[in-house]
Amino acid sequence: MTKPHAPLYYPDYLQLDRLLDCQHLESADHGEIAHDEMLFIITHQAYELWFKQILWELDAVRALFKKQAVAEKAVGRAVSHLIRIVEIQRVIIGQIDVLETMTPLDFLDFRDYLIPASGFQSLQFRLLENKLGIRPAQRLSIDKTPYEARFAERDRVALKISEQEPSMFDLLDNWLGRTPFLHFGTFDFWDEYRQAVDVMLAKDRRLIEENPMFTPEKRAHQLKMLTATEAQFDALFDPDKYERLRQDGSFRLSHQALQAALLINLYRDEPILYLPFRLLSLLMDIDENFTKWRYRHALMVLRMIGRKIGTGGSSGHDYLRQTAEQHRVFTDLFSLSTFFIPRSALPDLPPHVRAAMGFQFSESSS
Amino acid sequence: MTKPHAPLYYPDYLQLDRLLDCQHLESADHGEIAHDEMLFIITHQAYELWFKQILWELDAVRALFKKQAVAEKAVGRAVSHLIRIVEIQRVIIGQIDVLETMTPLDFLDFRDYLIPASGFQSLQFRLLENKLGIRPAQRLSIDKTPYEARFAERDRVALKISEQEPSMFDLLDNWLGRTPFLHFGTFDFWDEYRQAVDVMLAKDRRLIEENPMFTPEKRAHQLKMLTATEAQFDALFDPDKYERLRQDGSFRLSHQALQAALLINLYRDEPILYLPFRLLSLLMDIDENFTKWRYRHALMVLRMIGRKIGTGGSSGHDYLRQTAEQHRVFTDLFSLSTFFIPRSALPDLPPHVRAAMGFQFSESSS
Amino acid sequence: MTKPHAPLYYPDYLQLDRLLDCQHLESADHGEIAHDEMLFIITHQAYELWFKQILWELDAVRALFKKQAVAEKAVGRAVSHLIRIVEIQRVIIGQIDVLETMTPLDFLDFRDYLIPASGFQSLQFRLLENKLGIRPAQRLSIDKTPYEARFAERDRVALKISEQEPSMFDLLDNWLGRTPFLHFGTFDFWDEYRQAVDVMLAKDRRLIEENPMFTPEKRAHQLKMLTATEAQFDALFDPDKYERLRQDGSFRLSHQALQAALLINLYRDEPILYLPFRLLSLLMDIDENFTKWRYRHALMVLRMIGRKIGTGGSSGHDYLRQTAEQHRVFTDLFSLSTFFIPRSALPDLPPHVRAAMGFQFSESSS
Amino acid sequence: MTKPHAPLYYPDYLQLDRLLDCQHLESADHGEIAHDEMLFIITHQAYELWFKQILWELDAVRALFKKQAVAEKAVGRAVSHLIRIVEIQRVIIGQIDVLETMTPLDFLDFRDYLIPASGFQSLQFRLLENKLGIRPAQRLSIDKTPYEARFAERDRVALKISEQEPSMFDLLDNWLGRTPFLHFGTFDFWDEYRQAVDVMLAKDRRLIEENPMFTPEKRAHQLKMLTATEAQFDALFDPDKYERLRQDGSFRLSHQALQAALLINLYRDEPILYLPFRLLSLLMDIDENFTKWRYRHALMVLRMIGRKIGTGGSSGHDYLRQTAEQHRVFTDLFSLSTFFIPRSALPDLPPHVRAAMGFQFSESSS
Repeated sequence: MTKPHAPLYYPDYLQLDRLLDCQHLESADHGEIAHDEMLFIITHQAYELWFKQILWELDAVRALFKKQAVAEKAVGRAVSHLIRIVEIQRVIIGQIDVLETMTPLDFLDFRDYLIPASGFQSLQFRLLENKLGIRPAQRLSIDKTPYEARFAERDRVALKISEQEPSMFDLLDNWLGRTPFLHFGTFDFWDEYRQAVDVMLAKDRRLIEENPMFTPEKRAHQLKMLTATEAQFDALFDPDKYERLRQDGSFRLSHQALQAALLINLYRDEPILYLPFRLLSLLMDIDENFTKWRYRHALMVLRMIGRKIGTGGSSGHDYLRQTAEQHRVFTDLFSLSTFFIPRSALPDLPPHVRAAMGFQFSESSS
Repeated sequence: MTKPHAPLYYPDYLQLDRLLDCQHLESADHGEIAHDEMLFIITHQAYELWFKQILWELDAVRALFKKQAVAEKAVGRAVSHLIRIVEIQRVIIGQIDVLETMTPLDFLDFRDYLIPASGFQSLQFRLLENKLGIRPAQRLSIDKTPYEARFAERDRVALKISEQEPSMFDLLDNWLGRTPFLHFGTFDFWDEYRQAVDVMLAKDRRLIEENPMFTPEKRAHQLKMLTATEAQFDALFDPDKYERLRQDGSFRLSHQALQAALLINLYRDEPILYLPFRLLSLLMDIDENFTKWRYRHALMVLRMIGRKIGTGGSSGHDYLRQTAEQHRVFTDLFSLSTFFIPRSALPDLPPHVRAAMGFQFSESSS
Repeated sequence: MTKPHAPLYYPDYLQLDRLLDCQHLESADHGEIAHDEMLFIITHQAYELWFKQILWELDAVRALFKKQAVAEKAVGRAVSHLIRIVEIQRVIIGQIDVLETMTPLDFLDFRDYLIPASGFQSLQFRLLENKLGIRPAQRLSIDKTPYEARFAERDRVALKISEQEPSMFDLLDNWLGRTPFLHFGTFDFWDEYRQAVDVMLAKDRRLIEENPMFTPEKRAHQLKMLTATEAQFDALFDPDKYERLRQDGSFRLSHQALQAALLINLYRDEPILYLPFRLLSLLMDIDENFTKWRYRHALMVLRMIGRKIGTGGSSGHDYLRQTAEQHRVFTDLFSLSTFFIPRSALPDLPPHVRAAMGFQFSESSS
Repeated sequence: MTKPHAPLYYPDYLQLDRLLDCQHLESADHGEIAHDEMLFIITHQAYELWFKQILWELDAVRALFKKQAVAEKAVGRAVSHLIRIVEIQRVIIGQIDVLETMTPLDFLDFRDYLIPASGFQSLQFRLLENKLGIRPAQRLSIDKTPYEARFAERDRVALKISEQEPSMFDLLDNWLGRTPFLHFGTFDFWDEYRQAVDVMLAKDRRLIEENPMFTPEKRAHQLKMLTATEAQFDALFDPDKYERLRQDGSFRLSHQALQAALLINLYRDEPILYLPFRLLSLLMDIDENFTKWRYRHALMVLRMIGRKIGTGGSSGHDYLRQTAEQHRVFTDLFSLSTFFIPRSALPDLPPHVRAAMGFQFSESSS
């Protein structure tokens, strides 16, 4: 207990008088209440409440990563915020099951009253996308108009600001690029990794060439696949090629940041890398969960209005299904697994690196 | 499209300006924002939105059942409403996972500011309980004060009204009691069922007495169990005994209604009983889901504040755990399965009953 | 209790000795146990157990619908089977979360040992697809080889048989086509529906043309959209056009069956149509859930192996993502909502039809 | 790719021939297949598969903690194993929804054939309980016979061994007791914490005594509650009292281990404590999830067979409901929150402790 305060009443604390008065049925204005419009409103309001919470958490993470130097503690706290976002996403994906209890015929009872309002106009969701790191150029356009055209003036301002702030992607890119362990004393991660890859690929080639069980066709096929793999690694190791891949959108992280993300994944068992590894995994979870959410939404829309044009004037199903593929942010982290090498082939960390990655103090050392 | 109306804007339709302005952090007033208080508020607000929706659906079902005669169509519509309630319950149970991302230490950052507010004071949840059919006398008391003592005056009025209206339980009881098929022409369900039970129990007794593999102890044990089963059926068949069981709270439905519920379960494959059977099942689902929700809540509270007294002054964990057992409504429907008899032992319906339970028109008849 | 039998022991009943001895780690044969291979095996075995159960339910439904005439009771039973399939699908979609606790690096520890085995070779899943109604021609091919080429001879036989049996789709198509209510005495559903559509479209056109708030551009746009809608209905009403759309794959149900499906949806509140409506909804749920499952799987594969070729030699992510779109069965039921008209515009059913769709006996009539 | 091996076939790898041949319906032997018996078998087999996986993970964690000194890396790995167990628990809880699609009447079709087999006889689940740390004395007895009496001889041996091995609880207790930070140089955590508690309680007392808004009754009530809180802390600080509480079962961890668990919770933001904190949280999750699972199971049994005696001869619902309360292992970790003090009241860590809890190397230090 701190200082005395007036006794708090739960309904007042939650402002339920106002909160539960925000549901106005358009159908009532048109003369007949459409029972299911209440569900439509409340489900979308529940989404918006959760979006507010996700933004609250995401802004907290971004604030931590905006610092010049991000302390280990801060990574721990960021991880907690991201875990919460993932749990919230589980809930909002589950909400689609509730909305699907409304049948298409029930929706028809009030659908026309909503024109041209559309979930597309969820300001918070667009802010969320921008703050995560979706770039305007990457957005799927509808009827060739920019996405902000569908918003009111005051909302367009907020959108513009969110586009200009450093996104979670930008902050991650910077933070990864500063990782001290890429070059640590005499240890050069990139060099070591590259040698390990070369050894692994050479061994694979030998195995294919010498395998007595292969038919010539089989051998040729395997070698073709190996050559494709070699080409992927080549692009990774050649900074110029990598830069070109960045230009064409195949990669987005800086070369340095990509290396750091790879190091974190490959040596994630070292204590100092545990939290960074969790952080990367959670950002992938979040990306994946929004993809799931969009895709589930696309399926629901298909069911609700078939291939008709949505209330917002766009063909809802196709738009949502395509954003599920296109509105993604941390694709590089997914691509990374292409470059993983088995633990048995990983270069050993020299003792001074291993020491720096651990605690001075540990039960096993004491 | 109906009559012309001004174009609707999604944020306006959902009144997001107001909705997203209902989150006021008490901790901010005390000088330092507790990050997790936002989660606490938003989770509880999401609960309240969903409670509003559940009430919306439950009131719709009650309106249908308040009619003197409930048309078959109405049962179909009631079933749809109840299915939706079940889906909403899945979501609100899932929300507990989100709230559990708040650790006890984080909760301590603002917990004291909330005293004595408590989730106990959710008016909508209490209305929901009353409208389902929880009776004031059945409520677990806290500190020996009636539950409404914790509410503001205006809310006490609403609670009192909800206690006096016919609850879902009352309406179900009446509706079941009116079932025409208990006595249909020359067919007397209760008589037939009773004979079938007698035959079944006699056969069981013979099997036990004559089973050559039983040791005397085993036989004695089996006979004792059979005698207990016979006693249960006796109480069911003797209206006076049943009435006494109703008085002491072992049963709540009228004898007539209980018989109807049994008939519906045993002959649920007859077309006319399909929807009534679904209705009974869904009421059980809803009862069970609130039990799950309370129990999950109890576990969360245990984790959050240990065995400490909750912000509302009650020992949260124990209170919630006990309401999970005690605040149940449709327990009779659960007890019913005690009286089921295998399909092979069920009396056949005479043709005139079977005909009345089906459609005049069916593919197989045509 | 029936006839005496030897006491059953739970581990024997479930054959746990055998069941829990089916997990052989390939990595153990290669010298070092990969801890996560156990998870890989067990998750896939759990899938296969559930596939067996889904087949069990689906075969039961198909058996019911193979009958010359499907009694109302049978529809009720089919609905129960389908509800169970939907619940199982919820579980298997949830299992992906478990599999995702395996990281790509952990998978690398044993991935190569599995080549060229692949989930593609799940015989039960392919049988399931065939029995639902996926046609060989519709299947996404890999490397231009037919899907059965990846299976052992004995399994190819099973696949071939399943292709030739009437699928759930075929049985549904037949059953819908036999619906008696399309032409019932003097009532012709298709005629009535068509007139209602004409009235509705004419009214829409008038509203657009006369709306004083429309700019000329807005009006032109609205009229263009209306014309598109009219074209969709035209194709529906013209049997020749419809047949062409069937040839090109836009529709798959017979014209008669499609009409019946529409009737069931539009008049689903009539008692006799309740179960048929549930049946159609559940088939959509099942279709949608497999789509979700495939898509979730595609996302997991992306995460696990990036854009690499899967153990089966196919580019796993793309293959799975495309099957999510392409391996669908009941797309017509989803398209139906395009042709729904608001309840207020629906033709009233004449009394003799309404009577035939209800029970002779109902509380409200008695 | 490593050494050449014969091409693997998915159905062979998973031993599907055997796995899918382990479902033998007892009802078939009795003359008529009970359709739902397949579901009953497969659901329980899926449970057993997942139990095997949970044991696999739990054994891995126990192996890590059996070492004399547990390296930080090992804690990280243990956390990954536990996360997986939690995800598996989500799935097995979800499976209950599938089993609930079987109605009581359907269960009656084969229930008697199973007597006296019972889920109680799941050897793996009992092993799991023992390996987590449920003690024989703590087990709820049925009919006053020891739990192992229901098992076959060979299984009793396995149970006995599992009782004698160090359980997860024992290993945790030891590991916590060895925490170096309780006394670290001049820093004595227990001393500091105790002083902080004293200050906090004194302040609370003053606030109550001086609050001008309190009526005498209110003040008396508050003081009574404060006294109760003080008594709880007294027992914590007095080793003799604590030992007595251990004897009577109120606590189970050693005094030293409890202190360490408290330290980990209160200073969880320090890098070296992050993983230990996650570990404790996950053990609580696992405990809580088994409680949820048992409780859900209890509800299902109530619905399925009412208050009847289960196939195993025990009153299933009551037994399961009580084990949900009684078969818990990490209750001390839940009780801990009773002793948390707000961050603002926490003693600051001296620099040498803080340094030892961090990395030598961190972005912010470099």
